[in-house]
Amino acid sequence: MTTQSSGELYASYKTKMQQIADIRNAIAVLGWDQETHLPEKGAAFRGQQITTLSTLAHELFVEDKLGELLQNLHTRQDLDIIASKNAALSLEDYEKNKKYPARFVAELSNATNECYHAWIKARKANDYKIFEPVLAKMVELKKQEADILGYNGHPYNALLNEYEKGANTAMLDTIFADVKTALAPLLQQIEAKPQVNKDFLHLHYDRNKQWEFGIEILKAMGYDMNAGRQDISEHPFTTSFNPQDVRVTTRIDENDFGNMTWSCIHEGGHALYEQGLPVDNYGLPCGEAASLGIHESQSRLWENNVGRSLPFWQYHYAALQARFPENLQHVSLDDFYKAINQVKPSLIRTEADELTYHFHVMIRYEIEKGLLDGTYSTKDLNEVWNKYYREYLHVDVPDDNQGVLQDIHWSHGSFGYFPTYSLGSLYAAQFFIAAQKQIPGLIEQITKGDYKQLLSWLRDEIHHHGRYYTSNELCEKVTGEPLAFKYFLDYATEKYHHIYNV
Amino acid sequence: MTTQSSGELYASYKTKMQQIADIRNAIAVLGWDQETHLPEKGAAFRGQQITTLSTLAHELFVEDKLGELLQNLHTRQDLDIIASKNAALSLEDYEKNKKYPARFVAELSNATNECYHAWIKARKANDYKIFEPVLAKMVELKKQEADILGYNGHPYNALLNEYEKGANTAMLDTIFADVKTALAPLLQQIEAKPQVNKDFLHLHYDRNKQWEFGIEILKAMGYDMNAGRQDISEHPFTTSFNPQDVRVTTRIDENDFGNMTWSCIHEGGHALYEQGLPVDNYGLPCGEAASLGIHESQSRLWENNVGRSLPFWQYHYAALQARFPENLQHVSLDDFYKAINQVKPSLIRTEADELTYHFHVMIRYEIEKGLLDGTYSTKDLNEVWNKYYREYLHVDVPDDNQGVLQDIHWSHGSFGYFPTYSLGSLYAAQFFIAAQKQIPGLIEQITKGDYKQLLSWLRDEIHHHGRYYTSNELCEKVTGEPLAFKYFLDYATEKYHHIYNV
Repeated sequence: MTTQSSGELYASYKTKMQQIADIRNAIAVLGWDQETHLPEKGAAFRGQQITTLSTLAHELFVEDKLGELLQNLHTRQDLDIIASKNAALSLEDYEKNKKYPARFVAELSNATNECYHAWIKARKANDYKIFEPVLAKMVELKKQEADILGYNGHPYNALLNEYEKGANTAMLDTIFADVKTALAPLLQQIEAKPQVNKDFLHLHYDRNKQWEFGIEILKAMGYDMNAGRQDISEHPFTTSFNPQDVRVTTRIDENDFGNMTWSCIHEGGHALYEQGLPVDNYGLPCGEAASLGIHESQSRLWENNVGRSLPFWQYHYAALQARFPENLQHVSLDDFYKAINQVKPSLIRTEADELTYHFHVMIRYEIEKGLLDGTYSTKDLNEVWNKYYREYLHVDVPDDNQGVLQDIHWSHGSFGYFPTYSLGSLYAAQFFIAAQKQIPGLIEQITKGDYKQLLSWLRDEIHHHGRYYTSNELCEKVTGEPLAFKYFLDYATEKYHHIYNV
Repeated sequence: MTTQSSGELYASYKTKMQQIADIRNAIAVLGWDQETHLPEKGAAFRGQQITTLSTLAHELFVEDKLGELLQNLHTRQDLDIIASKNAALSLEDYEKNKKYPARFVAELSNATNECYHAWIKARKANDYKIFEPVLAKMVELKKQEADILGYNGHPYNALLNEYEKGANTAMLDTIFADVKTALAPLLQQIEAKPQVNKDFLHLHYDRNKQWEFGIEILKAMGYDMNAGRQDISEHPFTTSFNPQDVRVTTRIDENDFGNMTWSCIHEGGHALYEQGLPVDNYGLPCGEAASLGIHESQSRLWENNVGRSLPFWQYHYAALQARFPENLQHVSLDDFYKAINQVKPSLIRTEADELTYHFHVMIRYEIEKGLLDGTYSTKDLNEVWNKYYREYLHVDVPDDNQGVLQDIHWSHGSFGYFPTYSLGSLYAAQFFIAAQKQIPGLIEQITKGDYKQLLSWLRDEIHHHGRYYTSNELCEKVTGEPLAFKYFLDYATEKYHHIYNV
């Protein structure tokens, strides 16, 4: 056997990884179709088809031959830095995957299936007790998973790392301490002020006109319609089959103007990230997103720091008024701006404003961490939940559906995922301040509906790097310092000072 | 090693086949998306994703272990007749696949790719000479393929059997002799008569109203919209991911009413067949269509024997007139019926009426057969083509694009496919006569827009059998005799007697 050159070795690695990526992206197409176009009766076979492809992709990724190739590649000193990083990250992914015993994978897969169906059933009955025993089993498996993966400090770190490499409970505890000490008083001040009016956002907004407005905004942001498309689905999402085919979905509520608009901008932010990933690294780690938190930072930056800002609407509001004169002709820009930034503690995370959102996330984080280290048990978890909501959001949870059963994540076994939502907002605030420092006249550009330099900056600083940097590394590289809560706090303080006079 | 029971063996055969079917159906989803929704820039990676899945499906189907399983299963005497037929057909497919040397498969794949691009280039330049050298290479490979597959009689039989098992040149020569001796004089008589008017079919027909009318007809036929959907594509097609998700596409020309309507009915016929295949045989031969000719018989039966018949429009014409009063209120049902059945020799197969269509197919058949046995060479094939068109269709071919370059099939290496188009029409005519004999009052039902008994008959007699019978066997079983040209001739003679008074 002749020794392969590093170039040859890298080429066969790339071929194998891209083959796996092709299968995974085919699964994504099947999933997209499932949410947007699938006829009712097609669901059963579609599930089976997705399972078959998932199994195939998994089998290809755990092949011993791939492991040998990756080990071999890892010893090569003559790869360029991108190739070297790709090889290292793939080896890391491979070895992590290999840690899972087949028995455990099967058990987790069954439990996830069972848990999902129990959650559906519990939602229908509005009764947490139906969900509790299977959730308990899931928590046990998640504890085992933490042990399988290994961790420093808190077992939660093992799970968190699946979504946000490098993050840990020490970092999150600091962040959520800031949420409590700094955001809670701000929220209290706001609650003491007269509420802003947003009734006019709930007049009748024609479906087609909303759709056209959403497309207009997506295009203005720089979303490439020749490398993507928007469709309707029950829950908005972004899916990518490669950087040249990144699709978004939205939903339209004719009695809630905000529902579609910020979902378009939010998903548009995710999609811009995916369209900006380096296409020559298709199927390789450096062609993937850095982390869930960084992904969320891109959607949140566009949704909130841009899309709920006054400069943004200084440009777009006239067009919106022209589209819906019957609803908006007598609403001033300032009143519109206040309405879309209303702060109001509520029960449901996905409907929360950007301030109270962090409390929703914090509560889930505390509960997850407590479940893993034994502070909490699944028994009476609904009451734990309700207590948290009273304490931090000052609301009474009337039933389980509006409480502990509201999110799908735990039924999927996704523990450690929630914190990335808060991290996303915090990264967004910090990135957006850095962008303002580094792009002269950025806010001025936004008031003109011109996002070219912002997008170009995001591309250069964030998108083009793929998974090369961890979220921590990326944050330091882009902003010169680690993630800091103060940027979000400054942003929120300034915004709500204007809106609520606090 | 313990000997597996036949039941266990059959179960593992079924699992393997369904896994392969899942991949093939995923490819079909990717293909459907490509033709209906894919953003422009997504094409390159989509091609790669489809290639990866195709390779995987192929590799799984040629695995030696599958061969051993099929051989083993073939020896079992205790399988039920469906299981036994499935095993036998899968073994047949497997062994046919295994005949191809890897070198030949690669060569054919490259040649097909080259040939397709040369065809595109030749079409752009409207110049057959550009296509000729690669077509010559393709013909050589097709001769080799015939030898690889083996045949009795004419080498063309080997290729034909890929699409229509059991068909051969002897059978086709007889059919096309009938076309020449019986249809040619009928065509001549028609050409001597005054032409019917169809100008009103080319007035402006609103896109949305056409779409709604098409959906209405599909539903009336019994196409299950909960197990399928219709979308727009450049070329209409039917694709199935399983009997519970069978999709059709159409195109709309606002200046040609016929363009969409009969494409809906045609694809609807294909789709009814696919929706009627036995779902419990998913992934197995008895869950597949019998042959291309039988598939085409289902589309043609609905398109022509039903959808271009007077009884059909006795019911639907009023609704059509109501939708397009400005175009049709002064057009009598009889004039409409004549218009949609106009016979007029023309250059392009896909636009041909149902009488001259057979000459288009016959010409391609004669040329393909001649290329394979050396009667013709690819050199000057455009002139051979043009001579045939003058002789049988009395038209002068003005250029290569309207002649020898018009169809995509040869560029795909599909030799032996064309005859199935004529076979489809002939089977349709024979099946429809049988249906009339076996369903009392069928025509009466059609005049009431009631197709339930017809569909139920097609389901029982044809759809539910899948690939259990060959097309010949099925024809004898359903109609009591082998395929006979006289049914189509009787049908055409009667129809055109009414329309052209011949």
